[in-house]
Amino acid sequence: MSEVEGKAAGEPLKVALLGCGVVGSSVARMLTQQAGDLTARVGRPLELIGIAVRRAGRDRSDLPVDPSLFTTDADSLVTKADIVIEVIGGIEPARSLILKAMEHGASVVSANKALLAEDGPNLYAAADRCGVDLYYEAAVAGAIPILRPIRESLAGDEVRKVLGIVNGTTNYVLDKMDTTGQGFAEAVEQAQALGYAEADPTADVEGFDAAAKAAILASLAFHTRVSSDDVHREGITEVTAADVQAAKEMDCVVKLLAICERTRDEQGHDLGISVRVYPAMIPRSHPLGSVRDAYNAVFVEAAAAGELMFYGKGAGGDPTASAVLGDVVAVARHRVGGAKGPGESAYADLPVLDIGRALTRYHISLDVADRPGVLAQVATAFAEHGVSIETVRQQIVRDDETGAARANLIVVTHMAPDSALSATVDALADLPTVDEVTSVMRVEGS
Amino acid sequence: MSEVEGKAAGEPLKVALLGCGVVGSSVARMLTQQAGDLTARVGRPLELIGIAVRRAGRDRSDLPVDPSLFTTDADSLVTKADIVIEVIGGIEPARSLILKAMEHGASVVSANKALLAEDGPNLYAAADRCGVDLYYEAAVAGAIPILRPIRESLAGDEVRKVLGIVNGTTNYVLDKMDTTGQGFAEAVEQAQALGYAEADPTADVEGFDAAAKAAILASLAFHTRVSSDDVHREGITEVTAADVQAAKEMDCVVKLLAICERTRDEQGHDLGISVRVYPAMIPRSHPLGSVRDAYNAVFVEAAAAGELMFYGKGAGGDPTASAVLGDVVAVARHRVGGAKGPGESAYADLPVLDIGRALTRYHISLDVADRPGVLAQVATAFAEHGVSIETVRQQIVRDDETGAARANLIVVTHMAPDSALSATVDALADLPTVDEVTSVMRVEGS
Repeated sequence: MSEVEGKAAGEPLKVALLGCGVVGSSVARMLTQQAGDLTARVGRPLELIGIAVRRAGRDRSDLPVDPSLFTTDADSLVTKADIVIEVIGGIEPARSLILKAMEHGASVVSANKALLAEDGPNLYAAADRCGVDLYYEAAVAGAIPILRPIRESLAGDEVRKVLGIVNGTTNYVLDKMDTTGQGFAEAVEQAQALGYAEADPTADVEGFDAAAKAAILASLAFHTRVSSDDVHREGITEVTAADVQAAKEMDCVVKLLAICERTRDEQGHDLGISVRVYPAMIPRSHPLGSVRDAYNAVFVEAAAAGELMFYGKGAGGDPTASAVLGDVVAVARHRVGGAKGPGESAYADLPVLDIGRALTRYHISLDVADRPGVLAQVATAFAEHGVSIETVRQQIVRDDETGAARANLIVVTHMAPDSALSATVDALADLPTVDEVTSVMRVEGS
Repeated sequence: MSEVEGKAAGEPLKVALLGCGVVGSSVARMLTQQAGDLTARVGRPLELIGIAVRRAGRDRSDLPVDPSLFTTDADSLVTKADIVIEVIGGIEPARSLILKAMEHGASVVSANKALLAEDGPNLYAAADRCGVDLYYEAAVAGAIPILRPIRESLAGDEVRKVLGIVNGTTNYVLDKMDTTGQGFAEAVEQAQALGYAEADPTADVEGFDAAAKAAILASLAFHTRVSSDDVHREGITEVTAADVQAAKEMDCVVKLLAICERTRDEQGHDLGISVRVYPAMIPRSHPLGSVRDAYNAVFVEAAAAGELMFYGKGAGGDPTASAVLGDVVAVARHRVGGAKGPGESAYADLPVLDIGRALTRYHISLDVADRPGVLAQVATAFAEHGVSIETVRQQIVRDDETGAARANLIVVTHMAPDSALSATVDALADLPTVDEVTSVMRVEGS
């Protein structure tokens, strides 16, 4: 036995793995193949004592683990472990198993964004009551270390804004629309064919996945409880090739953004936080503007640190397993040292503002009659809602057959409350000289 | 007293600040102005008990702290604190004060890259012996959380390569050379005028600062002791406008890179690690290629996580103070919870390879005679050293006066050991048909 192994010897820490899909398989493989390194880093060996699966008998001979470790009895497995890794996903049975594991004294590492975003405070309370750790770095942005930096590295700073591309599927789809000119449906089909989108892509394209991640990011960034239900959510299903083209003309790109923002009034008093997910144009020159394919990136603005960006793979077995195992080492070190990591921090308890109070900018494209006075009417509609205009661009479009001229107006606003912006759009649609509001998209990141 | 304050009440943790320059002032201000948040996040109040300065009597009325806190008696101050923040910099008296603080039971947060890179193992050993924490996130890349992600988030993964722009001054200088075509001297003067470079820029432009950071990054990434002396270091003073222009023609940009790499043979056996700092071309399309001005960024490749990038401000009072205070909260939480963070991890103890064994690529520009057989001679010189050529580009340059034709050859190699590459350059310079080797630069990040 080498000196290192000698030092690290001692009772192994028992690790139970719940779930053996793409992520679970990677976790099992890495736990086995990197056992020596993990032992040295933790100070005690990690022993995989069981892998709970839904169906027994499936061939898993590709995994370098003892076949007798597989069990369908997750309920019993969690009572025997020091550390439970939950990579089942979904609300149940994941929640009950996690709670049971904690009650039996196990620290929990989870990759379950849906559960954390729906019921985080209860899980934290259980962890606190049981004196165990709850870690979930893998729940947001896969391999990218983002929760630990926000929760620990920025713990002495004030986070003002988090702007994230946290869903790889939608980023892939929007990137393809941008580079090929494809419409939404075609790009989704291609993403499905390549395995970037699931057969039922609802959770991704409707923004549910991003909303859960936004809730988790906002909770940590603002020391406030935020659940999925608090997040204003718009997906990308209505993003058209024309919207993407309009963004291009502005030297922008359309991204599905998870936005967490702390809003203050002019005197510096906290108004609350805004947590929202929607497709928006951002300048190509913005650090998030060059995030391609299925990559994720999170941009953070903090009072003292300034602008930070974290970039990497947001999904996949190995990348997600990397985040899971980082947490496993952390909670295992705590076990060895008799310590516990940070628990829930919700002391700030800031109100979550309605989407109407979020400050943003709109890019609006209108088809209007080409005659004097139309621009004045349009400008009046903005002014009446207290929205100031940054730029207006007018293009004359002549109908090849009739020869009639119509005008296309593109208006980009200054920052204004979303309620005023959306009321302006409604008013524009009602103007007799406006044929059609052809595209409405928010502009972020400037 | 609110519930939060009630919970967090208790004996304050005593914090001593050593140094009150740009970073120290920001730390003092943030400790004071964010006292409420810090108390809530730590679970107990932090009380600033003293600020050690070199000279008494300087006007510091701009800082919101009690003037009686300033002292020139650092030696006595460190014996009274629970947490000591060292932002003096340099080796002494910083080292003695840190060791004394630890012996008196204080955890230490330092921003001192030079000291950590020179004497990290001794400081770690002292921290271990005294049962206290040693944290130093601010020592590398200022506000960017990079040490904690490597030390903790990636603790379950295997880091293969770290490629960092970790010195803002040199990045500013090289960026100006790139955008304006200026030479090195002119760009440095401008950087000095704008406060981006010091009056004596040696530590930055000769790569000493980056080498210290490379040593720290390599130590954490590879669980191996690496000191500044182990780092191969080349500065940017010899980078010419012509080098920068040559990079442009390759769609590359010249950056001073800190490179930490784990090298394996074809069977996967560890050969050792390479830690080096030098200016190199990287493609503009590489995530590091778009890092402008004085920004820092660190690119990490890990076995499971894949490619990650961390980007932000690498220097400045507030950004650095953000990193310092994140560490202060971490070690304070440990005090409250009776815990200790991770100590030194040097179990892997990998050999540090000589620069000659580093694998890299060269971009070589040569002035040669324009006659048949020259290219064959040049190609033979590469072949004799086992270096294969990726591309050769030849330009004929005709002397306006004499009409004589000379040729400029640009050769980009495939990956090869640095020793073979530099021996090739020596051999090329000795060829009778080669007038001059006009530019040699490594190519990284492809």
